[in-house]
Amino acid sequence: MPALPALTDLDPAPRILLGPGPSMIPPRVLRALATPATGHLDPDFLAILDDVRRLLQFVFQTQNELTLAVPGTGTAGMEAVLSNLVEPGDRVLACSAGYFGERLAAMAERHGAEVDRLQRDWGQVFEAEAIRQALQRKTYRLMTLVHAETSTGAWQPEIPAIAEAAHRSGAMLVLDVVTSLGGLPVEIDAWDVDAAYGASQKCLSAPSGLAPVTLGARARQAIAARRTPPSVFYLDLEGLQRYWVEPHVYHHTSPIQNFYGLREALRLVHEEGLEARFDRHQRLAHRLWRGLESLGLQMLMPEAIRLPTLTTPRLPSGIDDAEVRGRLRQEFNLEIAGGFGALAGKVWRIGLMGHSCRAENVALLLAALQATLQPSAS
Amino acid sequence: MPALPALTDLDPAPRILLGPGPSMIPPRVLRALATPATGHLDPDFLAILDDVRRLLQFVFQTQNELTLAVPGTGTAGMEAVLSNLVEPGDRVLACSAGYFGERLAAMAERHGAEVDRLQRDWGQVFEAEAIRQALQRKTYRLMTLVHAETSTGAWQPEIPAIAEAAHRSGAMLVLDVVTSLGGLPVEIDAWDVDAAYGASQKCLSAPSGLAPVTLGARARQAIAARRTPPSVFYLDLEGLQRYWVEPHVYHHTSPIQNFYGLREALRLVHEEGLEARFDRHQRLAHRLWRGLESLGLQMLMPEAIRLPTLTTPRLPSGIDDAEVRGRLRQEFNLEIAGGFGALAGKVWRIGLMGHSCRAENVALLLAALQATLQPSAS
Repeated sequence: MPALPALTDLDPAPRILLGPGPSMIPPRVLRALATPATGHLDPDFLAILDDVRRLLQFVFQTQNELTLAVPGTGTAGMEAVLSNLVEPGDRVLACSAGYFGERLAAMAERHGAEVDRLQRDWGQVFEAEAIRQALQRKTYRLMTLVHAETSTGAWQPEIPAIAEAAHRSGAMLVLDVVTSLGGLPVEIDAWDVDAAYGASQKCLSAPSGLAPVTLGARARQAIAARRTPPSVFYLDLEGLQRYWVEPHVYHHTSPIQNFYGLREALRLVHEEGLEARFDRHQRLAHRLWRGLESLGLQMLMPEAIRLPTLTTPRLPSGIDDAEVRGRLRQEFNLEIAGGFGALAGKVWRIGLMGHSCRAENVALLLAALQATLQPSAS
Repeated sequence: MPALPALTDLDPAPRILLGPGPSMIPPRVLRALATPATGHLDPDFLAILDDVRRLLQFVFQTQNELTLAVPGTGTAGMEAVLSNLVEPGDRVLACSAGYFGERLAAMAERHGAEVDRLQRDWGQVFEAEAIRQALQRKTYRLMTLVHAETSTGAWQPEIPAIAEAAHRSGAMLVLDVVTSLGGLPVEIDAWDVDAAYGASQKCLSAPSGLAPVTLGARARQAIAARRTPPSVFYLDLEGLQRYWVEPHVYHHTSPIQNFYGLREALRLVHEEGLEARFDRHQRLAHRLWRGLESLGLQMLMPEAIRLPTLTTPRLPSGIDDAEVRGRLRQEFNLEIAGGFGALAGKVWRIGLMGHSCRAENVALLLAALQATLQPSAS
């Protein structure tokens, strides 16, 4: 057997996380994680799941009964929705203008869908009218759309009009809210979205490892009418629902500690209030944008469709992307992310999400960027 | 929107977990969970993944390069292995003598396999000769087998002979080690097992939410030769491997805190040593068995194939299963589990796994059972 590594005490650097997630975890949530475990069918734990379900209904702004957290990351939430709603041969219209829009398209293909892409350059968003026209070309089972595109920083508007167009054409709307849930308005019922999924580790500031998911009546009817069982047992949403609610049928061994953390994180969201939370994200994003502009940086996204939770300044010319981010990490313990795909080396991705979205973090990042980009001025 | 619940402080009862998992989490692991997060591509975190990989090679007793933890529970580990190794139309021989043997069969069917079951009554194990004969009837891509059947308490012997029979017939051997890994010998390389998966929350005593998986050369060659990509993106093992090792390509946002916990739990396994750990499980299991027998209980499994990690005494006649388990929970904060499927109401399932496997827990359980079953004698 290979020799084992030196097994030092766990001691990762104390990073200030201003990338596209994970965000920093509040002390109350960290402490909740260290609560001794119960069993996954213990009445005390089932009551915790019930709290989480109702708190998720609150952050999703929905009364959907099937509202739960899938035992995996946001990508598992995406795949749970697609693998339950898509059967081989189904037609899917995928709106793709970034990495995650494209991931939805490719994932639907893995599950046997015939996917048509409505393609835009990375960083663009979709007009409802363009989607309406695309939906008329064929009969689609569903369409996929990203509310907050983590690869570009684009904020998709017109969701209610798009949902209406989808329903008029007979399609369901699947909405990715990974980078918006808990950071900007997400209103599943008012917008009439059929299925949506998020992630625990972004604007909710819980540990990574859980994916909030909600399904409306149309989506559940579509599952009930399937010709074959959903292809992925682990992500079978009706199977998960039978565990979450009576009669609490065993499906998997729930990640207990993650739910302790998510409950506490959602409780913090509820204590702050959604409106106050969205205001905080808006206000500090504007402060960040003004600061970046005063450093001479230009934003990729026009302000009207720019996410408050994820900002993508273009790299100044002559700057070494990896070197700057390495210095921010090594000299200031600051994490921001680079672009990827079509935007690799062209933008940075700066997240102000949940507990990371704080005045002191904005001030520190601007100071650290100034010291790194303009050493003579510091 | 529905009214929100009373949001009390998180305060689940302090259970002593002697069911089939989760087991109790050691204080050092609980503290590790509360370590502030790094990013999932941070060099400090990638070093942690590398530690985990090498520690998992140690507990699996393998040099397999593709050894990692899937970001989900044991069921996700099962589905990762099947969805990567099975293509639609492939023939699978599933050895089924309990709930998890049957789950493997049904899951392979979801992924399009033509499954033949080698069926035994719940609680039996398989003779290598019977498997050898079954493998000769058709050409199978793989066979599935459960090393430690969590629904019955059966300990499957003869794994090396079964692996040899599988390979001679051209099939791969997939082995479920969910209830054995870290509690009794699992020797992937010496036994020549092609793919195996476990769970974090049983004999390793880490939080639930990660599934150790290891794949040997035959299994990786089978993936490389697939006609179609694995059907589940989230569980695509080569995709996960490209994130775990250079060049560390983004695949999902790793559940950081779970890995903090798993690293510390594996470090504790390494400090104790595998042999000492297996001895502890054997010694305390024998103490439990003698104690249960002196209470008049009979074991479902004969001692030669009885798991030390999970004991299944038959219920005494005239006993109300739910009432006894309810009293153990309410009066002593003790969790044991009932049987399910064919064994519902017929056995209890008592786990002595990892950190739960302690002399004081055995003594308490025996005293609590005596007080509950024989109140006059107490």
